[in-house]
Amino acid sequence: MNKNHHVVIMAGGIGSRFWPMSRSNRPKQFLDVLGTGKTLIQQTYERFLEIIPAENIWVVTNTQYTDLVREQLPNLTESNILPEPVGRNTAPCVAYAAFRIHQVNPKARMVVAASDHLIMNPDRFRKDILLALTATKTEDIIMTLGIQPSRPDTGYGYIQYLDSPETSGSGYHKVKTFTEKPTREIALSFIQSGDFLWNSGIFIFSVKTILKAFEKFMPELHELFVGIRKQLNTPEEAPAIKSVYDRCKNISIDNGIMELAENVFVIPGHFGWSDLGTWVSLYQEYQKDYLGNAVYGKGMIYNSSNNIIRVEKKDKLVLVEGLEKYIIVDTDNVLLICKMDSEQRIKEFVGDAKKEAGENFV
Amino acid sequence: MNKNHHVVIMAGGIGSRFWPMSRSNRPKQFLDVLGTGKTLIQQTYERFLEIIPAENIWVVTNTQYTDLVREQLPNLTESNILPEPVGRNTAPCVAYAAFRIHQVNPKARMVVAASDHLIMNPDRFRKDILLALTATKTEDIIMTLGIQPSRPDTGYGYIQYLDSPETSGSGYHKVKTFTEKPTREIALSFIQSGDFLWNSGIFIFSVKTILKAFEKFMPELHELFVGIRKQLNTPEEAPAIKSVYDRCKNISIDNGIMELAENVFVIPGHFGWSDLGTWVSLYQEYQKDYLGNAVYGKGMIYNSSNNIIRVEKKDKLVLVEGLEKYIIVDTDNVLLICKMDSEQRIKEFVGDAKKEAGENFV
Repeated sequence: MNKNHHVVIMAGGIGSRFWPMSRSNRPKQFLDVLGTGKTLIQQTYERFLEIIPAENIWVVTNTQYTDLVREQLPNLTESNILPEPVGRNTAPCVAYAAFRIHQVNPKARMVVAASDHLIMNPDRFRKDILLALTATKTEDIIMTLGIQPSRPDTGYGYIQYLDSPETSGSGYHKVKTFTEKPTREIALSFIQSGDFLWNSGIFIFSVKTILKAFEKFMPELHELFVGIRKQLNTPEEAPAIKSVYDRCKNISIDNGIMELAENVFVIPGHFGWSDLGTWVSLYQEYQKDYLGNAVYGKGMIYNSSNNIIRVEKKDKLVLVEGLEKYIIVDTDNVLLICKMDSEQRIKEFVGDAKKEAGENFV
Repeated sequence: MNKNHHVVIMAGGIGSRFWPMSRSNRPKQFLDVLGTGKTLIQQTYERFLEIIPAENIWVVTNTQYTDLVREQLPNLTESNILPEPVGRNTAPCVAYAAFRIHQVNPKARMVVAASDHLIMNPDRFRKDILLALTATKTEDIIMTLGIQPSRPDTGYGYIQYLDSPETSGSGYHKVKTFTEKPTREIALSFIQSGDFLWNSGIFIFSVKTILKAFEKFMPELHELFVGIRKQLNTPEEAPAIKSVYDRCKNISIDNGIMELAENVFVIPGHFGWSDLGTWVSLYQEYQKDYLGNAVYGKGMIYNSSNNIIRVEKKDKLVLVEGLEKYIIVDTDNVLLICKMDSEQRIKEFVGDAKKEAGENFV
């Protein structure tokens, strides 16, 4: 394994769209969402362990989840856990990791990946990652993994690429534009045009390249981190990071860099990906009966179709009659029953539940 | 209080239409269904305690519930608990109680009442009961309490009465016919005719009258009990009763006697009655929000109307979105979600749950 290869696993999200399974004190990445016996972050860690040296695996997470990270990834080097005092989206997270990795190895190349995605074919995934890590060795480029869209999903970002001779046969393409969550009509036109991919949010670059990009496109953030460089990996790191996070903007790496940079390339991935971002995306991954009911637990279903039913307690029976296209999630202290078509309201529900019922319920 | 007045509280039912709140090891009568702080059988007991001497209150129940009866009615005389080895509907139950009471006091008059009904106005109820107890003192008649129907309910039996001069001003009428659960059209015609009442299943008669009726209309059952008369109220009572129940038919007092007897009278009751027989009948008794949702527990309701939601655990939150006319019941190990219109299927669901999931779930 190449000692210059690093991976940064982002594990700071609170997964509120997955409420009430995902809870603020144990979000989605720390749950065995798919019933495989492993949590999503454990699956992510193990997926990379085959191609990235263990000591080069980093996890950025919120300070409140560091114990969960230690518990679920007992072999992770303690100093490779980078705790964020507060969530500021992905740009500060990537900058933090890049500065830390640069300190260890200025020649490093790094993969940035979410901790809570599903990869159905990890071998193909790793092949694409290695292709990207190789391409970024000599070239000052930012590589992303795109996903062939299977439907006009309005919950994803889209990447438009160019078919230019210079990348012919390389396995990747130059990126023309990044587009955030489009309307349904636009998503449909993207799919029809044939040169759009879903943005998986997985990026690969050398630390040099990304630090240069921060300097160019997000000079304020860059300067904040330059200012605390000497405190990194010392006992003063935590307060220094806190001061940076207190002052930096909440902004994604997509908005801050990807949409502006000229040297972005994309590999069209075919490794069976889902960001498991919502109940419906999880529904698509579950096994279903012939009426389209995905039942995770002990269920008895009558006169019902196309529901996702998830029960936390293994010895609980759920009997459902006369429902179509509903999300039913039963946890110890919350029961959610809502239409699939209303899943975008779940964030609102979580906010209301916090206000009306209290912290214990979110 | 008149020492000749007795009441027989029938508490052997398993309340399967109230599943999953009502469970085979703790049926409806032993639950605080209405959230009053008292179970239905406790409410029934206390309702009669004001007009019937404590030592004349009898409870017939299944052997498996005798401990629950003792626990919930600690002041009940132990020998006044009549355990049935198996449920055989109401006729054997009434016969058992009548033979026991006759032994104690041949002049006794007895009320037969379910343990799990709701009476909103107990004062009026007791007035009607006393009227019936008085009327049956000298007359060889069977008295019933009928309920002014408020809707063409197909789940109840109906009593048609005659307006004859002989009962004018008495507060009761001669019964013309008993009709079991009618179709909707017939129920509607009953309501329109104006001379039909719901059959509350509450009967009042002297023990002499009812024993005579058993002898006339159910001679086999009568003979079985005559045969074990000497064992009643002795250590041999339980095996003797078992032998009777092993041999007797499963039949209701309505079918066995009321529909055949000529001397049946009915008092039109106005005491706010419900047999709480189904979720929808319970729904009618609950307080509802302005959209018709009856929520018993901590609920958050969006875009939903006319649902009944009952959560056993007090510190559990139920969030419901996009449901209309559903029954949602959450217990420790069963969650039921079904259409109100399908409530007649709940018995079927219970049977399936027993088969497919096991005894623990029913």
